[in-house]
Amino acid sequence: MSILIRGGTVVTAEGESRADVYCEAGKIVAVGENLEAPAGAEIVDAGGQYVMPGGIDPHTHMQLPFMGTVASEDFYTGTAAAMAGGTTMIIDFVIPNPQQRLMEAYETWMGWAEKSAADYSFHVAVTWWDETVDQDMETLVRDHGVNSFKHFMAYKNAIMADDEILYNSFTKALSLGAIPTCHAENGELVFQLQKKLLAEGITGPEAHPLSRPPAAEGEAANRAIKLAEVIGTPVYLVHVSAEEALDEITRARNEGQRVFGEVLAGHLLIDDSVYRHPDFEFAAAHVMSPPFRPKGHQEALWKGLQSGNLQTTATDHCCFCAEQKAAGKDDFSKIPNGTAGVEDRMAVLWHHGVNTGRLTPSEFVAATSTNAAKIFNIHPRKGSISVGADADIVVWDPAATRTISAKTHHQNIDFNIFEGMEVTGNPSHTISRGVVTYKEGELRAVKGAGRYVDRPPFPTHYEAMKKRAELNKPTAVDRSLSNAAD
Amino acid sequence: MSILIRGGTVVTAEGESRADVYCEAGKIVAVGENLEAPAGAEIVDAGGQYVMPGGIDPHTHMQLPFMGTVASEDFYTGTAAAMAGGTTMIIDFVIPNPQQRLMEAYETWMGWAEKSAADYSFHVAVTWWDETVDQDMETLVRDHGVNSFKHFMAYKNAIMADDEILYNSFTKALSLGAIPTCHAENGELVFQLQKKLLAEGITGPEAHPLSRPPAAEGEAANRAIKLAEVIGTPVYLVHVSAEEALDEITRARNEGQRVFGEVLAGHLLIDDSVYRHPDFEFAAAHVMSPPFRPKGHQEALWKGLQSGNLQTTATDHCCFCAEQKAAGKDDFSKIPNGTAGVEDRMAVLWHHGVNTGRLTPSEFVAATSTNAAKIFNIHPRKGSISVGADADIVVWDPAATRTISAKTHHQNIDFNIFEGMEVTGNPSHTISRGVVTYKEGELRAVKGAGRYVDRPPFPTHYEAMKKRAELNKPTAVDRSLSNAAD
Amino acid sequence: MSILIRGGTVVTAEGESRADVYCEAGKIVAVGENLEAPAGAEIVDAGGQYVMPGGIDPHTHMQLPFMGTVASEDFYTGTAAAMAGGTTMIIDFVIPNPQQRLMEAYETWMGWAEKSAADYSFHVAVTWWDETVDQDMETLVRDHGVNSFKHFMAYKNAIMADDEILYNSFTKALSLGAIPTCHAENGELVFQLQKKLLAEGITGPEAHPLSRPPAAEGEAANRAIKLAEVIGTPVYLVHVSAEEALDEITRARNEGQRVFGEVLAGHLLIDDSVYRHPDFEFAAAHVMSPPFRPKGHQEALWKGLQSGNLQTTATDHCCFCAEQKAAGKDDFSKIPNGTAGVEDRMAVLWHHGVNTGRLTPSEFVAATSTNAAKIFNIHPRKGSISVGADADIVVWDPAATRTISAKTHHQNIDFNIFEGMEVTGNPSHTISRGVVTYKEGELRAVKGAGRYVDRPPFPTHYEAMKKRAELNKPTAVDRSLSNAAD
Amino acid sequence: MSILIRGGTVVTAEGESRADVYCEAGKIVAVGENLEAPAGAEIVDAGGQYVMPGGIDPHTHMQLPFMGTVASEDFYTGTAAAMAGGTTMIIDFVIPNPQQRLMEAYETWMGWAEKSAADYSFHVAVTWWDETVDQDMETLVRDHGVNSFKHFMAYKNAIMADDEILYNSFTKALSLGAIPTCHAENGELVFQLQKKLLAEGITGPEAHPLSRPPAAEGEAANRAIKLAEVIGTPVYLVHVSAEEALDEITRARNEGQRVFGEVLAGHLLIDDSVYRHPDFEFAAAHVMSPPFRPKGHQEALWKGLQSGNLQTTATDHCCFCAEQKAAGKDDFSKIPNGTAGVEDRMAVLWHHGVNTGRLTPSEFVAATSTNAAKIFNIHPRKGSISVGADADIVVWDPAATRTISAKTHHQNIDFNIFEGMEVTGNPSHTISRGVVTYKEGELRAVKGAGRYVDRPPFPTHYEAMKKRAELNKPTAVDRSLSNAAD
Repeated sequence: MSILIRGGTVVTAEGESRADVYCEAGKIVAVGENLEAPAGAEIVDAGGQYVMPGGIDPHTHMQLPFMGTVASEDFYTGTAAAMAGGTTMIIDFVIPNPQQRLMEAYETWMGWAEKSAADYSFHVAVTWWDETVDQDMETLVRDHGVNSFKHFMAYKNAIMADDEILYNSFTKALSLGAIPTCHAENGELVFQLQKKLLAEGITGPEAHPLSRPPAAEGEAANRAIKLAEVIGTPVYLVHVSAEEALDEITRARNEGQRVFGEVLAGHLLIDDSVYRHPDFEFAAAHVMSPPFRPKGHQEALWKGLQSGNLQTTATDHCCFCAEQKAAGKDDFSKIPNGTAGVEDRMAVLWHHGVNTGRLTPSEFVAATSTNAAKIFNIHPRKGSISVGADADIVVWDPAATRTISAKTHHQNIDFNIFEGMEVTGNPSHTISRGVVTYKEGELRAVKGAGRYVDRPPFPTHYEAMKKRAELNKPTAVDRSLSNAAD
Repeated sequence: MSILIRGGTVVTAEGESRADVYCEAGKIVAVGENLEAPAGAEIVDAGGQYVMPGGIDPHTHMQLPFMGTVASEDFYTGTAAAMAGGTTMIIDFVIPNPQQRLMEAYETWMGWAEKSAADYSFHVAVTWWDETVDQDMETLVRDHGVNSFKHFMAYKNAIMADDEILYNSFTKALSLGAIPTCHAENGELVFQLQKKLLAEGITGPEAHPLSRPPAAEGEAANRAIKLAEVIGTPVYLVHVSAEEALDEITRARNEGQRVFGEVLAGHLLIDDSVYRHPDFEFAAAHVMSPPFRPKGHQEALWKGLQSGNLQTTATDHCCFCAEQKAAGKDDFSKIPNGTAGVEDRMAVLWHHGVNTGRLTPSEFVAATSTNAAKIFNIHPRKGSISVGADADIVVWDPAATRTISAKTHHQNIDFNIFEGMEVTGNPSHTISRGVVTYKEGELRAVKGAGRYVDRPPFPTHYEAMKKRAELNKPTAVDRSLSNAAD
Repeated sequence: MSILIRGGTVVTAEGESRADVYCEAGKIVAVGENLEAPAGAEIVDAGGQYVMPGGIDPHTHMQLPFMGTVASEDFYTGTAAAMAGGTTMIIDFVIPNPQQRLMEAYETWMGWAEKSAADYSFHVAVTWWDETVDQDMETLVRDHGVNSFKHFMAYKNAIMADDEILYNSFTKALSLGAIPTCHAENGELVFQLQKKLLAEGITGPEAHPLSRPPAAEGEAANRAIKLAEVIGTPVYLVHVSAEEALDEITRARNEGQRVFGEVLAGHLLIDDSVYRHPDFEFAAAHVMSPPFRPKGHQEALWKGLQSGNLQTTATDHCCFCAEQKAAGKDDFSKIPNGTAGVEDRMAVLWHHGVNTGRLTPSEFVAATSTNAAKIFNIHPRKGSISVGADADIVVWDPAATRTISAKTHHQNIDFNIFEGMEVTGNPSHTISRGVVTYKEGELRAVKGAGRYVDRPPFPTHYEAMKKRAELNKPTAVDRSLSNAAD
Repeated sequence: MSILIRGGTVVTAEGESRADVYCEAGKIVAVGENLEAPAGAEIVDAGGQYVMPGGIDPHTHMQLPFMGTVASEDFYTGTAAAMAGGTTMIIDFVIPNPQQRLMEAYETWMGWAEKSAADYSFHVAVTWWDETVDQDMETLVRDHGVNSFKHFMAYKNAIMADDEILYNSFTKALSLGAIPTCHAENGELVFQLQKKLLAEGITGPEAHPLSRPPAAEGEAANRAIKLAEVIGTPVYLVHVSAEEALDEITRARNEGQRVFGEVLAGHLLIDDSVYRHPDFEFAAAHVMSPPFRPKGHQEALWKGLQSGNLQTTATDHCCFCAEQKAAGKDDFSKIPNGTAGVEDRMAVLWHHGVNTGRLTPSEFVAATSTNAAKIFNIHPRKGSISVGADADIVVWDPAATRTISAKTHHQNIDFNIFEGMEVTGNPSHTISRGVVTYKEGELRAVKGAGRYVDRPPFPTHYEAMKKRAELNKPTAVDRSLSNAAD
């Protein structure tokens, strides 16, 4: 099982160079010019193409039970579709019900994920708090390769984490060397606005964005960041969709705070006019949270990517088909939230990012793979073309053109938010742990071939944060002399 | 009862001019050059002096029951001291206990205030929520001249308003034409940090500022502002002490949002080094919330005043003597929060504001009187030198020098946070409703002479906000045709 | 010659109140409820209407010789048109040629202005520098009522002021108590881009905005502000058209710097798509500098007005007819720069500002009249409804509707940039120095009735700036001891 | 000539890992665990130490003729001192006199540099403009490995580049794929303030910072950035010393503009109080431009480094001894500008950056070496520990302590601005092109061993910028139909 990728331009987050890449037993074994192929090695001709780390989608929800139904994409179909688009790893979410043990939920998800075709890992959500949550966080980090915990600041009366939970969980995560992540929307505001809009008789999908205004995201983003600042922990905001939230991240980063932001391919390209489409199915198919935003936000998000204030790109891949979406026919707040994209992210980003000159190929690699690997501490094993790394590679044909469509995609959903978009720049080969799983239109994903990826705690910057905390440690004033004088 | 103030320079928020001011029956009757004094009129010689609207302190807590004790200054002593310093009106706070009817609390405070020497009015705090609170807000606005409601975002497990209360109360206030005001500190953070510091053995006053970091104020300020933005109401932040909170106000105002900010004389001049003073009594005497801030914040607040991003100055006058402060000897979180200042605000502001060239005399008048009158909708009756206005006037001697001290002040407290500060620029006469109540060192305040000032709802800008809301009103999409096709 | 304006709502920058206004001999003599009309007084019925200070347009160019032609509107026709729209005073510009004595140019303009129907004053431009300029600035301030000097940072090889001129002139102005004003565009950049575009064959009006990008305005705005900061003078930026320039003003003001900004009615409402109109005449008619900006800038400018970061509104009224504009048929850089608007500013501002809820009526008055009067130190004589003020008044009918058109306007130009705009809110009467000059469609302007308005130096805030400068005065280090030890 | 560095932790900008590094013939040949040393290889024991890319100081002035004297450090002594501190490459400056051919100056400097002990390269200054400058820029890029051009926005009447020169040179550089760099200070302001201060009798070094206020740097920074934005070129600001300049960079980067900023070790740690030192020699020894800044700026600059808004660290190493500095005894503007630091930069940065937790070791490597290599397009040959890279390596002992002093440093100057600073973290070995040039206190630098490093044009992001420019290319409007109708 060895592969030689020959004749391409290797692109990493660090730069570009002409080099061949040789893989054996699932690892990259050599990177250099004019490598020799051992007998029996499969040869991939990458002439005129880019050889890049396979994409990492740090935000997916395969087969998620949510809002009374279950996402239509399972771990096999979802990861297979991912590989058709050049993505070789996902980080999905374990989401316990309030009062459910984290470990129990973790094991449930681990079971579901066994059928994955690509490598995977899990963020674990903290949706409630008691002593067992504290214990399970510890167990998950120590024994199960989890180094990130997710918090929903929205979804009041369900999985919303209030400031008390956030404080406890952030504090615990910091002590474990794990990073807290947040879905930043003020759940109270959303709840109240949903009630208000329904009361006013605005019940269709057009109410969805009105119930989740950019200000609600900005507020929550700032709250998460300020809590993190005070506690002294890094924090990662998922699916930043609004300029207001980006501004908070930018402001904090400019002050040197270790705040990270993720942006979805959809939020970069789609605006909120979709929700006023006269066809309910079309409008409802776009219902996700946070919603697509008014024109103007998209360009701001691109600038966030360009400037590095946003580091990662994801999809929040969470598929519900038309009949599932129909549950909210008369009440937008009951439309299952979610859209697809795990297959299209890389091509959409390349087309609108690299072909337009917003990003260099290296910046593309950083944004689609390397930065996620670094933040979630699996670099250079993932997100890297270097000796010793996992052989998760995409060979990228910058000239290959494709028109995105639900009719042709591999995702298990009847809709595509990028329907009709022609993208130039597509994978010719996807290689997962040294095996070609996608080749020029042919998907060879193998159910169950994916492996769980342990993510160790304490990435390097925790050491630096500890030093700073030590220097700023509060101290008591000795008032003994003064007290004596009382 | 008529007075002619002769020979001075009248200063209003609009400008300066040489003019005499004639008052009769508690009102200003004429403003002009070379006015004639009717027989029997008292003559005040204002030669070489400024004639300005009496100060309005929009934030005091006379005889407040708080943290197990009662503030030492009552409505008589407090308003008398105010007039010694040139302040002729206070706006105090009715603070119901959670579950207590607002009307009941309002009547309690109204009773206490009968002994006021100067005019007064009340903000009413919303510390909980149910249908009766909603009703009482309406009654207070409609029948009792209340047009502002206060919300404590701090003091968890006591009077803290969470986002749900804020949403309900802001929404109700808007409908009534009343303005919500907020004490902006994240109460959860403060609560957790208090626990943490005590657990670490840091129990003295030095822990007080550590438990209430600037970030906690910035967070809450932004939350209040974002809620107000979404609801479409103006909002007023009391005692802005941290650059972080000012930044939020500035940002919102630059976007055209109607956000107002108040700053205390103490926060403009005192830094947090006081809390590390070896003498507990000294340190504890400075305990108030938000606390005095690290050096650097003071200059930022001055810039806030200069730029107009902060509009009003106040004191949060809330007096506790040393024996009361001693309740927190072993636990800083039990030190009654509060400091004095109602007597010193005007002189301190003049000395450090006007004498340094930060503010013009007109800007001083705006910041100490007129802006508060406008925001709380009692202008031009208050905060103005114009025909028809209440004759609340201070004659200001820019050359008069005084050294502030607890030994000589009229405030009923054994400590002065400005102790030893020499200030140039002091009142020579204070006139309240046409009566001289302070004259060159002699305090002539009369118990009970003060009157309750009705503040009507719907200041002008509510009309503009209503127009904007109307223009931006959400509408439903008609999907009947599309539905028919299903 | 006395007038009683009866039954209206008086609006000033300070607020609104029901009051009558009585004027005699060109002055306001009484403001109050239920005033009696002396015999012979003209009665103006203002029932259901607003009574406001007449508009001040602080930026016009009547009969300006420019770019090889002369603006088509003279001081009579221009001020007459102004009064048809409710504007009762203009501040125009004396623009000496480089090497021309300022006094000589001043006298030329004073001669031209004698035919003015409304009051007027002059900013004087500093377009070059030598000792005589220094002297003439002094003469103009001391003896001729000039308190503002204008600097063109654009128009290289013509009237552009480089940093050396700016430094000298700002410094001189400060010493005289006069305020420097700037047209902020980087003239070098404009010059180079004009060359480049012409060389690329882009010769039509569409090249005009491309040659003057927002960044060129932002750059110059910041340069002027930074020079002013270092020199310690206030500064006023004329016709702020780009968000970039507004951002610079906002930033400086937030720091407490005394920077003022003016915005044109046109820049608030028109975007740069006009320059790509297929009809040359239409496109060329919109050529002015700075140009109309891409969509998005307009909303930013409105926010600038709402926040008070922009204080004044003007028109840069400078009329060139189609045949004059034709001079640039083959070279956009030869199209005479200028558009009209002095007649329409008030109505356009009211319609898009007050009717939309962006501004209250008081804020409208501040932005169209009072702020200009304050900044240029003629308040309360102008910009005010108060006893003793000049009787320059507009009676405003908020229900009156008009469709703006070159066919019906009084301006002496064949084009109107607001053509076809229906505005609700228009003057019913304009009163200039106590005389009705416009009444319900009938223009009664009298040639030569306008008077030159002296503007005294040293508005109040100069005193404050002097105090600050004194406090921050640089001092030398005494090194005598140390030197001795050498 | 082979070396095996064994047992250390390799730190790159990408991360840390335990690895040995083997070098042969001046190149890195292998990086990996447990490498075997070939016979004869020198073994460096890096146990407990970090193995990092040698420092690159992108801003030095060896033996610069300046202000009537010549910098005391020549290319040999300077590069030797650099290696004692772990720096293995410098980028110095060719500075032609106005009217001097660039090529001539370039050759002069190339001659001087032959004695370098370490590798070197040259930025070339554009101090004037005519056709030959244009030609020489082209020659330098095409044939001589120059890819950066420097512009002094200060030093009026000497080498100052005005906007016209900046426009021409930036435009030319962009076309050649070279990056413009700027010394950002408004030279006119500095010139005027120098005159003013001297006229006021403030002649000592205390006048130096007063003549170069932060606003003058902020202004120029913004001007350079805006010119670059309009022209479409990246730009690099040298020695950012003031928060104001950093703010401009930050703002531009947040918008996605490709702006880079360099900060000097001195500006990070020293404040402007040094200029008021009573000893002239001490004060004068700190005279450099921009000057050290008031307290507060230092922390802002650190945040700039932490956030990545500043990418590189340098020294502006330019040595003048006391007798040279004495030229300005009676006139601060004649004190030769310059301070040393090439030897101390790495240790100072480590001590105050890494030991305090501001930076991780990887971020230290980026800031001291890799980022400079990337921006100036010599990565991964320089600034990298990877196979094929030049063997420029520093072995860093994080426990080694040293007290910085002019008495012990290797720099050829009688003063050290870091005198007395104890730093923990120092090089144990410096390796230059595979040769140990510094070992535990022993300096083995060899005169003339350094080589000129060609820097090729068109780093990757130029490709992206070209794509963007293409997309935004201005186009002409076809008015033929409309014209026909005239």
